[in-house]
Amino acid sequence: MNKQLLLNKRPIGLPNEDTWKLITTEIPSPKPGEVLIKQQFISLDPAMRGWMDDRKSYMPPIGINEVMRAGSIGVVTEVNKNNTFQPGDYVVGWGGVQEYCCTNGNNWFKIDNSKIPASAYLSVLGMTGMTAYFGILNVGKIREGETVMVSAAAGAVGSLVGQIAKLKGCRVVGIAGGQQKCNYIVNTLGFHAAIDYKQSDFNSQLFEVCPNGIDVYFDNVGGDVLDAVLTNINLGARIVICGAISQYNSRTTIQGPKNYLSLLVNRASMSGMLVMDYKEQYPIAITEMAAWLQQGKLKYQEDIYFGIENFFTTFLKLFSGEKKGKLLLQLFK
Amino acid sequence: MNKQLLLNKRPIGLPNEDTWKLITTEIPSPKPGEVLIKQQFISLDPAMRGWMDDRKSYMPPIGINEVMRAGSIGVVTEVNKNNTFQPGDYVVGWGGVQEYCCTNGNNWFKIDNSKIPASAYLSVLGMTGMTAYFGILNVGKIREGETVMVSAAAGAVGSLVGQIAKLKGCRVVGIAGGQQKCNYIVNTLGFHAAIDYKQSDFNSQLFEVCPNGIDVYFDNVGGDVLDAVLTNINLGARIVICGAISQYNSRTTIQGPKNYLSLLVNRASMSGMLVMDYKEQYPIAITEMAAWLQQGKLKYQEDIYFGIENFFTTFLKLFSGEKKGKLLLQLFK
Repeated sequence: MNKQLLLNKRPIGLPNEDTWKLITTEIPSPKPGEVLIKQQFISLDPAMRGWMDDRKSYMPPIGINEVMRAGSIGVVTEVNKNNTFQPGDYVVGWGGVQEYCCTNGNNWFKIDNSKIPASAYLSVLGMTGMTAYFGILNVGKIREGETVMVSAAAGAVGSLVGQIAKLKGCRVVGIAGGQQKCNYIVNTLGFHAAIDYKQSDFNSQLFEVCPNGIDVYFDNVGGDVLDAVLTNINLGARIVICGAISQYNSRTTIQGPKNYLSLLVNRASMSGMLVMDYKEQYPIAITEMAAWLQQGKLKYQEDIYFGIENFFTTFLKLFSGEKKGKLLLQLFK
Repeated sequence: MNKQLLLNKRPIGLPNEDTWKLITTEIPSPKPGEVLIKQQFISLDPAMRGWMDDRKSYMPPIGINEVMRAGSIGVVTEVNKNNTFQPGDYVVGWGGVQEYCCTNGNNWFKIDNSKIPASAYLSVLGMTGMTAYFGILNVGKIREGETVMVSAAAGAVGSLVGQIAKLKGCRVVGIAGGQQKCNYIVNTLGFHAAIDYKQSDFNSQLFEVCPNGIDVYFDNVGGDVLDAVLTNINLGARIVICGAISQYNSRTTIQGPKNYLSLLVNRASMSGMLVMDYKEQYPIAITEMAAWLQQGKLKYQEDIYFGIENFFTTFLKLFSGEKKGKLLLQLFK
C-alpha cells in the first residue's frame, strides 16, 4: 500500500495535527510513458509553509486534499515504456510527501550516488545548495575581502552561504540561536565569527564583531534580526532576501523592516531571490560544489528522521530552532 | 543686517515654533579668497527633516545653534581676492537659511539664468531634478514599455520622475492625495493615470489602473502606500527608495514595509538612492533636462513663499500635502 499525506486544512499560524491527514491507498501503476518511484527521502524546507497559504506566490498554493508538495529522492521501481529512466535509477524531483508516486519523468533528474550519498541531492547539491550558491554569488555579488553576514547560519542554506563566501575570500560572520550553534559555525564550519541573536547584547555585538560594517547580508529570518543588521550596513551593501522564517507562522501581519531607510542612507539594496531562476546554471554550481565536497572544503549536515507518520513532528523542527543543517524525512531504509 | 535661522532644539515629531530661532547679526565681510552672497532663494526639501535628527546619516546632523542647512541661490555682491566669481554672478550652493553668507566658493557653482529662471537651479535643474533623473534612470533602470509608478507624484521630485519616464516611453501612473492633484498629474503633466491614496478603494485601484502590474516604483512616501504597491509588483520589479515623507515626523518607530516579502516572491529589489552620488554626471542630466524644458516637453511648478520670517510655516507645507511642485522661500525680491 501507499501512504500519502494530504493537506487537510490551511493553517493559521503554526501548523497543527489537523493541518494534514495521512491516507492509505493502492500503490499506483505507471501508465504508458510513466515510471513508478519508491521515495527514499523527502526534503523539508521553510518555504513549504508559504505554499500552504492561499495567496499568489511564485508557485500556486497546494490545494486542499492534494498531496503535500515536497522535493524528494527515490528509486525507479517500475517502468512502462519510458526511455529516460530504468529500474534502479536514483532520481530527484517533486515527489511530494507520499511513499510512492508515478510520473512521466518531467522535472525528474537522474543522480549519481556512487561517490556522494543520494540525500546530498536534496541538501548540499540540491535546491538548498543551489539557493546558497546563487544567492550569495549572483544576488549578493560578494567580492573578495568583503564582510558577509548570514542569519540562520547553522541551518541548511546559511551554513553553505557562509562557507561559500569564505571560499571566495570574504570575512564571514554567522548569526544563530544559542552557544552550541555558534560554536558549530565557528569551530566546525570555519566561519570567522558567530553572534547569538538570543543574547541581550546582540545589537552591540553586531558592531563589535563587524567594526567595518557589513557589505553583504544573506537573510533567512527577517524580523528583529534583519532590523538590527540594517543598522550596520555599509555604503552600497547588498541584502539578499532568501526567507523570513521568523515571520512564516505569524498570526498577525508580517513585521516589516522598520530600519529599511538605511537602504537610502547607504544607497544599499534589498533583493529577493528564488533558486528556480538559476535552473539553467545548476550544473555549474553542482560541479564547483561537488569539487569542494570531495576536497573536504565544504561541510554539510543532515538531520534525518524516519517515517511518513512523523512528518508533522519533523516539520515543526524547521521552526523550533532545534535542528542543524538540512532536515530530511526518510521513508524507506 | 543679516538674518539667520539657527537650529534651536531637535524636534520630536513635527517641528514646532521652538525648533528654530531667528537671530540678527552683522552682514559678514568676505575674508581674502572669499565672496559675499546675497541669497535669493532657499530650497525646502523633505530631507531637511532628517538632517535635524542626531543620528548617523549620509550627512552629519545639523548642530544646535548652527545655521539651518539648505540649498540656495544667490548673487555675489562682494569679492575679496577670489578669482572664480565676480559681483553680479548668480550662484547655487549650500548657503543655509540666512540672508547673507560668505564662502570661499567651494561647492558653489555659477548658473546661467539668461534663458531659464534662476530658481530652476533649485528645482528642475537642481538637486530635485537630478534626483528624479538619476533615480528613475540609473536606479529604476526603466525600459521602454514598462509601467512606472511614482508616489508624491504632484511633488517636486515625483512630477519630474513621471514626466521623464513618459519621455522614455513608459506608461506612467502617479499616486497623490486628492482629486485636484490627480487632475493636475494627468491633465497638466500628462501622466497616463493617477490614483488618490486618500480614497478607500486605493488598494483595488492599484490593480485596476495597472492590470499588468508595476515594473518600477519610485517611492517618496513609504508607509501604507509602499505596502500597497508591493502587492502589485511584477517579476524583477525595481523599487527606488528616494524618501519616506509619511514617516519623517513619526514619533514612534518607522513603519517598515510589511509586504517586503513580495521582493522574494517577485525576485524584485528595493534600492536606496542619493543624488550626490551622481554629481559627476549632473552635466549630462542638466543638458537633457534643459533641452526638454526649452522644447516644452517638461513642466515644473514652484511654490514660492517670501521672507525668512516665514520659514517655519513654509517648511510645514512640505508635510501637510498642501503644495504642488517645488517649495522655495524667496529672501529678496
